[in-house]
Amino acid sequence: MPRQTQIGLMSHAELVSEYETQTANYAKLQTEKLTLDLTRGKPAPEQLDLSADLLSLPGSGDYRDATGTDCRNYGGQQGLPELRAIFGELLGIPAANLLAGNNSSLALMHDVLTFALLHGTADSAGRWVDEPVKMICPAPGYDRHFALSQSLGIEMIPVPIGHDGPDVHAIAALVAGDPQIKGLWVVPNYSNPTGVTLSEEVARELVSMPAAAPDFRLFWDNAYAVHPLTDLADPVLDVLGLAAAAGNPNRPFVFASTSKITFAGSGVSFLGGSTANLSWYLKHAGVQSIGPDKINQLRHVRFFKDAEGVRAHMQKHRALLEPKFALVLRILEERLGPSKVASWTEPKGGYFISLDVLEGTAARTIALAKEAGIALTAAGSAFPYGKDPEDKNIRIAPSFPSLTDLETAMDGLATCVLLAATEKHIGD
Amino acid sequence: MPRQTQIGLMSHAELVSEYETQTANYAKLQTEKLTLDLTRGKPAPEQLDLSADLLSLPGSGDYRDATGTDCRNYGGQQGLPELRAIFGELLGIPAANLLAGNNSSLALMHDVLTFALLHGTADSAGRWVDEPVKMICPAPGYDRHFALSQSLGIEMIPVPIGHDGPDVHAIAALVAGDPQIKGLWVVPNYSNPTGVTLSEEVARELVSMPAAAPDFRLFWDNAYAVHPLTDLADPVLDVLGLAAAAGNPNRPFVFASTSKITFAGSGVSFLGGSTANLSWYLKHAGVQSIGPDKINQLRHVRFFKDAEGVRAHMQKHRALLEPKFALVLRILEERLGPSKVASWTEPKGGYFISLDVLEGTAARTIALAKEAGIALTAAGSAFPYGKDPEDKNIRIAPSFPSLTDLETAMDGLATCVLLAATEKHIGD
Repeated sequence: MPRQTQIGLMSHAELVSEYETQTANYAKLQTEKLTLDLTRGKPAPEQLDLSADLLSLPGSGDYRDATGTDCRNYGGQQGLPELRAIFGELLGIPAANLLAGNNSSLALMHDVLTFALLHGTADSAGRWVDEPVKMICPAPGYDRHFALSQSLGIEMIPVPIGHDGPDVHAIAALVAGDPQIKGLWVVPNYSNPTGVTLSEEVARELVSMPAAAPDFRLFWDNAYAVHPLTDLADPVLDVLGLAAAAGNPNRPFVFASTSKITFAGSGVSFLGGSTANLSWYLKHAGVQSIGPDKINQLRHVRFFKDAEGVRAHMQKHRALLEPKFALVLRILEERLGPSKVASWTEPKGGYFISLDVLEGTAARTIALAKEAGIALTAAGSAFPYGKDPEDKNIRIAPSFPSLTDLETAMDGLATCVLLAATEKHIGD
Repeated sequence: MPRQTQIGLMSHAELVSEYETQTANYAKLQTEKLTLDLTRGKPAPEQLDLSADLLSLPGSGDYRDATGTDCRNYGGQQGLPELRAIFGELLGIPAANLLAGNNSSLALMHDVLTFALLHGTADSAGRWVDEPVKMICPAPGYDRHFALSQSLGIEMIPVPIGHDGPDVHAIAALVAGDPQIKGLWVVPNYSNPTGVTLSEEVARELVSMPAAAPDFRLFWDNAYAVHPLTDLADPVLDVLGLAAAAGNPNRPFVFASTSKITFAGSGVSFLGGSTANLSWYLKHAGVQSIGPDKINQLRHVRFFKDAEGVRAHMQKHRALLEPKFALVLRILEERLGPSKVASWTEPKGGYFISLDVLEGTAARTIALAKEAGIALTAAGSAFPYGKDPEDKNIRIAPSFPSLTDLETAMDGLATCVLLAATEKHIGD
């Protein structure tokens, strides 16, 4: 029975009645002894099954790339040319400006930051580690980006993220005025967790705005470049071309991976950049390792064949993910729509739905859910230092659970949202 | 016709005659237009063929480890338990104290050093990057170790390496007296390039000697732990146990990999350490990546099955490598023995033969070889900063070329050694 009244407009008597209803719902929820997990953007087993052929590729006797290189041996720091060609086409980056690495794009981000800290970038006067370094962090954003910055002693400056991306006016003012600001985290397509895709206008501003630091960098994490949930995929912007045209060719470092395309733990990663940036990276990476796992790269080449192969593969993911996103949105609308205590994103791609509950109740909601056996990412985790200033954001990751588990978890979460909101209103 | 006279004892007339002979030999060598490569310790294609089954492993439907974990997905920072058990047995390290990583142990060394620089170790008062840091470098040693130290701004202090390992008395004096000395590079078994294996006595001294720096670390690179070339393999020392017994459990970081066991570029790597050291590493590695490529680890488990599988596999490598080492030693003895202008190691395992030519002629010899199409590692590369104080060391890597090519290359190299030595004696 859908609720007809907004919680914020209820009389005290109605609130008490609502509180009793939700308390009863929650007590019932607890009796179900759930152990459900909405924490991480992990592919479901059925998604991993789509890449089952990788388990026996490249196959007997197949170990040479198109140039004849024996992929089993050492070397080839930049990765397989044909793999770079396939993903270069998808990412809008010339193969010569793309590097293919091991299984983690996060590790490439870590590399770029640690190389900059210990050696300085191609445009730095010195090592970043010798001065205070700050990064701008559009929030809510990806918790692992923020953990990386924090771990490396980089001060994080949050800026809000709106419907067409981060607040570029706020960013431009910060970047123009503070030479200690060396970087900006940005997920250009289907952002984690808001689902926002940057407009070309915003991208142009980010690559062209004046920066007080000559070595200011965009950490352009295109993790969901080819991950649409609708027929009309958001375009992948040619950020390297835009940056070069704006006279700042070395500003963007582009990151991507197949973690949410093939096997999450056994995919390949990509780093795109200007010739100067790639040369800089390769110089330091050449000291760190004798090259990436080229056989795994060849395995991916054999599996996909070409860029169209990747696109077709992503449609299979979409077929598995779309019903889960639709289910989450339906339950949110049915259970939380009338009460007006929450709003949420309706992403056209990516892996997350960002749920904003009543201010001051996100932590309480997540704690209630946890007690009922529904695991959610820790409160505030989409914000720098884990601090959600309004205590209202909850990231929902619908990909991993089955549809049945997802329905149970979302229904339980909705109960927790309503209970926490009612408690709050009664307390106010 | 073997030479009967030592070059150092020749009269001037004999020297001139010898010079004319070697000049003629060298001119003939140049007409052969060789392109041969003795630079790197790369496995030959036939060695890589020994692991051909890896190209289609783990195989259709096989993606769970013994605990039931889906190896395709994210996670499992420490690596597959059964792979750690196999290599733990071979390395003398409990599986709980061993981590299995991606394809490069050099990358693990880079990680440990950069984590120490940016965060300090488990026993450090602060970040290494905030103070001058020095490492002791037994030389001749592995050029990539030294490149890593140099690239990271770590001052290198060379110490000589003798028949039972590095000069421990010199090391102990340095380590006791200088708190800026934070580390020592050491290859305990079949060292690169000298082939020396550390005695247990030397190992005990290294783990127990007093260190001025409380966070002094041994970078114990056991790259050739299971790579004997004779029936009697040198034992792998329990360095973690020895260090714990000596009251310095956190001193050693142990590194190893399958780069010279399976595929050089697509193997797995290992990091061993005390519980405190592994926890420290995992804490920082958890920010860097969401875990290693577990499918490649599973692939290796399926291929080897157990530690005995690795040992049996290494005997196949030995069968391919032994004739190459024997050939090099035979040519060195035949061509250079009587002249007494060179000495060389006769390794019982590993990948290299270390050739010492007449003092002051290594660079000239390598240049002559290069002009004749025989590539050798750059002069001095086995020494910190590339500086061989006596200009006499040449590292020979016999593994990659075919036996025919190796014979041609070694014969040509011998001519270059003799020509350079004769030039030197005439000039003196």
